[in-house]
Amino acid sequence: MSETMNQATNSHVPSGAKSGSLKAADSQVAGWREKLDEDDLAVLALRNLIFDICNQNGGGHGGSALGMAAIGVALYKYTMRYNPSNPSWFDRDRFVLSNGHAAMFLYALNHLTGFDNWTMDEIKGYGSAKTNGYKTICHAHPEIEVPGVEVTTGPLGQGIANAVGLAIGSKNLAARYNRPGFDVVQSRIYCISGDGCLMEGVALEAVSLAGSLQLDNLVLIYDNNQVTCDGPLDWINTEDVNAKMRASGWHVLEVADGCYDVQALVATLSYAKTLRGKPVFINVRTVIGLGTKVAGTYKAHHGAFDPDSIALSKRIAGQDPSVTHVVPPESLAYFRERKAFGETLQREWDGVVRQYESAHPDLASSFDRAIKGDNGTQWLDILKVMDSAQFGGKATREANGVLIEKIWPAYPAMCGGGADLVNSNKVSYTDSDVFHPSVSYSGRYIRYGIREHAMTAISNGIAAYNPGTFLPITATFLLFYLYAAPGVRMGALSHLPVIHFATHDSFAEGQNGPTHQPVEVDSLFRAMPNLTYIRPCDGEEVIGAWMLALSKRTGPTMLSLGRDPVGAVPSTDRYKVAKGAYVIQEISGAKVTLASCGTNLHYAVAAGESLTQAGIPTRVVSCPSFEHFDQQPQAYKESVFPVDGTPIISAEEYVATTWARYVTASVSMTGYGYSASNESNYDRFGLDAKGIEKRVRKYLEELDGRNARMAGWRQI
Amino acid sequence: MSETMNQATNSHVPSGAKSGSLKAADSQVAGWREKLDEDDLAVLALRNLIFDICNQNGGGHGGSALGMAAIGVALYKYTMRYNPSNPSWFDRDRFVLSNGHAAMFLYALNHLTGFDNWTMDEIKGYGSAKTNGYKTICHAHPEIEVPGVEVTTGPLGQGIANAVGLAIGSKNLAARYNRPGFDVVQSRIYCISGDGCLMEGVALEAVSLAGSLQLDNLVLIYDNNQVTCDGPLDWINTEDVNAKMRASGWHVLEVADGCYDVQALVATLSYAKTLRGKPVFINVRTVIGLGTKVAGTYKAHHGAFDPDSIALSKRIAGQDPSVTHVVPPESLAYFRERKAFGETLQREWDGVVRQYESAHPDLASSFDRAIKGDNGTQWLDILKVMDSAQFGGKATREANGVLIEKIWPAYPAMCGGGADLVNSNKVSYTDSDVFHPSVSYSGRYIRYGIREHAMTAISNGIAAYNPGTFLPITATFLLFYLYAAPGVRMGALSHLPVIHFATHDSFAEGQNGPTHQPVEVDSLFRAMPNLTYIRPCDGEEVIGAWMLALSKRTGPTMLSLGRDPVGAVPSTDRYKVAKGAYVIQEISGAKVTLASCGTNLHYAVAAGESLTQAGIPTRVVSCPSFEHFDQQPQAYKESVFPVDGTPIISAEEYVATTWARYVTASVSMTGYGYSASNESNYDRFGLDAKGIEKRVRKYLEELDGRNARMAGWRQI
Repeated sequence: MSETMNQATNSHVPSGAKSGSLKAADSQVAGWREKLDEDDLAVLALRNLIFDICNQNGGGHGGSALGMAAIGVALYKYTMRYNPSNPSWFDRDRFVLSNGHAAMFLYALNHLTGFDNWTMDEIKGYGSAKTNGYKTICHAHPEIEVPGVEVTTGPLGQGIANAVGLAIGSKNLAARYNRPGFDVVQSRIYCISGDGCLMEGVALEAVSLAGSLQLDNLVLIYDNNQVTCDGPLDWINTEDVNAKMRASGWHVLEVADGCYDVQALVATLSYAKTLRGKPVFINVRTVIGLGTKVAGTYKAHHGAFDPDSIALSKRIAGQDPSVTHVVPPESLAYFRERKAFGETLQREWDGVVRQYESAHPDLASSFDRAIKGDNGTQWLDILKVMDSAQFGGKATREANGVLIEKIWPAYPAMCGGGADLVNSNKVSYTDSDVFHPSVSYSGRYIRYGIREHAMTAISNGIAAYNPGTFLPITATFLLFYLYAAPGVRMGALSHLPVIHFATHDSFAEGQNGPTHQPVEVDSLFRAMPNLTYIRPCDGEEVIGAWMLALSKRTGPTMLSLGRDPVGAVPSTDRYKVAKGAYVIQEISGAKVTLASCGTNLHYAVAAGESLTQAGIPTRVVSCPSFEHFDQQPQAYKESVFPVDGTPIISAEEYVATTWARYVTASVSMTGYGYSASNESNYDRFGLDAKGIEKRVRKYLEELDGRNARMAGWRQI
Repeated sequence: MSETMNQATNSHVPSGAKSGSLKAADSQVAGWREKLDEDDLAVLALRNLIFDICNQNGGGHGGSALGMAAIGVALYKYTMRYNPSNPSWFDRDRFVLSNGHAAMFLYALNHLTGFDNWTMDEIKGYGSAKTNGYKTICHAHPEIEVPGVEVTTGPLGQGIANAVGLAIGSKNLAARYNRPGFDVVQSRIYCISGDGCLMEGVALEAVSLAGSLQLDNLVLIYDNNQVTCDGPLDWINTEDVNAKMRASGWHVLEVADGCYDVQALVATLSYAKTLRGKPVFINVRTVIGLGTKVAGTYKAHHGAFDPDSIALSKRIAGQDPSVTHVVPPESLAYFRERKAFGETLQREWDGVVRQYESAHPDLASSFDRAIKGDNGTQWLDILKVMDSAQFGGKATREANGVLIEKIWPAYPAMCGGGADLVNSNKVSYTDSDVFHPSVSYSGRYIRYGIREHAMTAISNGIAAYNPGTFLPITATFLLFYLYAAPGVRMGALSHLPVIHFATHDSFAEGQNGPTHQPVEVDSLFRAMPNLTYIRPCDGEEVIGAWMLALSKRTGPTMLSLGRDPVGAVPSTDRYKVAKGAYVIQEISGAKVTLASCGTNLHYAVAAGESLTQAGIPTRVVSCPSFEHFDQQPQAYKESVFPVDGTPIISAEEYVATTWARYVTASVSMTGYGYSASNESNYDRFGLDAKGIEKRVRKYLEELDGRNARMAGWRQI
């Protein structure tokens, strides 16, 4: 745009539109319009559509979307490689709207550039009550299920970490598959963030890692509007964000007029592409709620905008203020040209890939399998024939470590690593396989550092790169997945396959004490929809858990693993893990059923033996996965947990919440643990064989032959 | 120490002690010792005690403790104001060991400086198996219950945020109570952190806020040993930490030889006291596992140290290598002098306070009440007489907002605020009452910014300043307490009273969609020991919840609150909230009991009425707090939830975990929510009155007169 025009729009249609401007005569408005170039008109058209979306149902998060309109034009018209006709084109640039509440920004651009699903009818669904079965893809926050949305965002900070994951994915594929003359992977990652995301710990962790990994295919655009929900930014944050990003290993660029100056943004984004060795942070100064009466204030964050400001904006664009949801044809054409452009881009890429197939047939074949998420079946064969006797009484983390070692080479999509505890987590790797600038970007092992939350959120980004191309793993102690829980949740909500290895899941965690003993964390993960939480009791069940985890393509799995060796458990069966719960010790005339799992189960087995010997025939059930058990037919469920009123007692060193669904009483924790040895703690809290037996006996005495189900569930 | 000596120790007893040095002749060793001054000997004595603690039971986290020994001497001998004879002296400087795994560092210093409880016998308990009832205060990580420990640390990053909270506490008290000539509050906060804490999001959030709040009474000492659990720091982090801290608004100082140069550390800490307007970051270069064979490597992080290195270290200190747990008398005296010094400090402070009582009697009286945590009883009177009719069908967040407004002036210990959503959380405040350098540090309202995790961890620090002096509140959406969960947990584990206001706890949260709808978050908080999770259904129950929250002095409370107005609920009773669950709708010949809480309850009431009218007499129970209900006598429990086999059905828009303890079936969620209006979602998921009634009828049909308890709990 011309410098003149920039001044014109700035001075004549100021932020917080003055009433004088609002009542401008048609001739004056026409005079302004004459100075507008096609970029200016496109920005106006986008903003006017945002006005309509925000106001169509009485409100929404329109303020930042308005302020970012010029950024949107710079990205979608001039910068990003994508194909509106095929939102899932493999080598597209990925765009992440980390400030997901500004969803209408993305939706409007998807509509304008011609994504087939983003019709104006869908756009009109934003903010609708959606009663009587009405559905729309225009959710309040972008959701990954909708073509044209790369990741689900909304909870602040997650998107920045997702973008780091997407950048890792692209970087890794480029290193593995690009060859001179054949840049089959060029995808770059663009992420927009507001002030909020940049204050969130998960984003700060991810920023630090991205700098350390020198991810120069990542551009983070900061929508710097200096306003948050509660007021001006400097009420809560006065840091020098540019200096902070530089210190974190990022290139830092700035655009002073991010509201109007499309070509300055384009030039900056273009320059960013030339920078190497660091990710790029572009600090763009914008005005929230630009051109409305609440511009520049926290009031612009949410809610409908004043009609006068909207009318003036539409008049400048040559639009009829009384009409909504109509884009001026010249501006629509300006955006829609991207559709043909994108198709050309993909055709060219298809051509390169065809030539690549001739020049590098083996690599091309591997590339094709990576795109399709084809990992063969060797991994399953390994799991089927693996001898679990080798694990003996070893800790489940040890058995799991062996499995990682064996499956890693057989499952090419597998990647990831741990949060600086991998020696304890037993996640082994070879030095040459590390994803790092000092080694190679073709490595699959990722050192996340002490950044649990970012680890899980970044993993979601890697998994979201292209369905099946990556199967990220993460690892830390179960307790520290509480730090990472929002990331785990977003993966589950987004149907992204990631495997979380949560070790040290019991008192037997090396005397660290109550700060490290996860008595209540299972309650969260067992309740989290679409997260499969499996707590295997021995190596045999760890194998079964892997079968399930690797077969699940629609969400994450968490394996809850023990640190220390445990006593032997009879009759475990890798194939029965899929039942969720199964009898491992049957006995005729059973008077009691004991249910347990993980590294607690062997104590239940021992208690059961002792009770049986003492004339109280006791069955024992292994319950590695409640989720799978809940899916079994009622008859099977009742074969495991009888409904005849005999006592069924769970024994686990956690607070018993979910257990109450299945059992009549629970031997469990009601408070926090203690910093002591395994032996001491299991004794202290009555959770060793002796303690379980004692509590079961007391319970039986109290029942005194009464029907256990009728007595109601109890803590014993 | 002399420059010569510094070189001598450095060159003659290098890190990773060379075998030549280890076998040094006695005469050579004596020559080295001659060059040591009393500081050097004190550092050696401390390190030798650390060796003994680490090795006494085969291992522990000794590496960083060794590297930080000189820092410990500089702090405890020369810098901090504290009284070993009275660990809870009100105006002491507070020390936080954020890298809590280095606990033995703190324990050894507490012993050396003469804290009465930290006897050598206790010290010997570190790492012991603690079988047969053996107890010690020497936990693997510092625990707040033990005098001489300010906060429980271990989970990385928390301590830094705690320290920020302590600094806020001190700053606030100083602003409120200090008067010219009467600095009754001088307490400064010292925190040590390793690489790990500084990578954690919670710490990064807290660092950013501390800089913005210009907390110049806070000193963060970075034990910069460049090694993490998995390997060298630069594997995972290459940022310029000094530049980052400067950008975050901190003064940055450096000490190059943090292993030996006590006086350089003292000078730096002394200079830090003179700096104003910013918190101070001191980057101290150290060597992990100093003077052992694993020095400078990740292997020094955990485990026992080699006897040869220990022997040499003891020989240099003039100690008998074959003897453990004996401190050379001159070094013990060097440290123990602090005991008399600390007593003098407190005596002087007592004197100032006495004069202050004469000069400023009203202020002194208020100060005394603040120290004692005396908040009077006016708040209770307000709660007792408050007319809940004023809240009508208003949202519980609205009623809660009114309560905050009314109680705030009546409860002087109350302080805190929200994470940039307080307009939505309905946490009102007056501009003049904001704790901020641009307003005043005497304000009680804290703007946390978009930093949920730091908000809760900082609140723990404020609460830990002095029991009862502060009652911090926090506020955000229930879903975003998942970001903050580790902080909430640490507060519960540490028995620190904080009140968390978790609004938007239902589908009725403004169409934000599944990213904001907390279907499983309650499962975590309801299972978290010592966190009281209360979900009131209306203004009357909100009052009851406040009575409980303000009466609880031994841990946090979370109030789960709704965003939107709800239908009227009959017979609610503020005093019955303390029962946890109580009947709000009794009926003779009841065939069904419906149980619900929060903003779901009115739907259950309506469903109950409809069922009753249709000839299925239905009772209704309000269940605001499972924790309180679990504490009731069995007879009361059975009066609420009959054990006669009639169906008891819970209705709540969360995944039903804890409910299964009490009911025979649950109307609940099994997956995530949807971005739609309240009406649409309650209909979509069958959780409005119509949906509940329909599901109950289907359940009754399936039961077909069978005993509901015998049929087992089910999802309906």
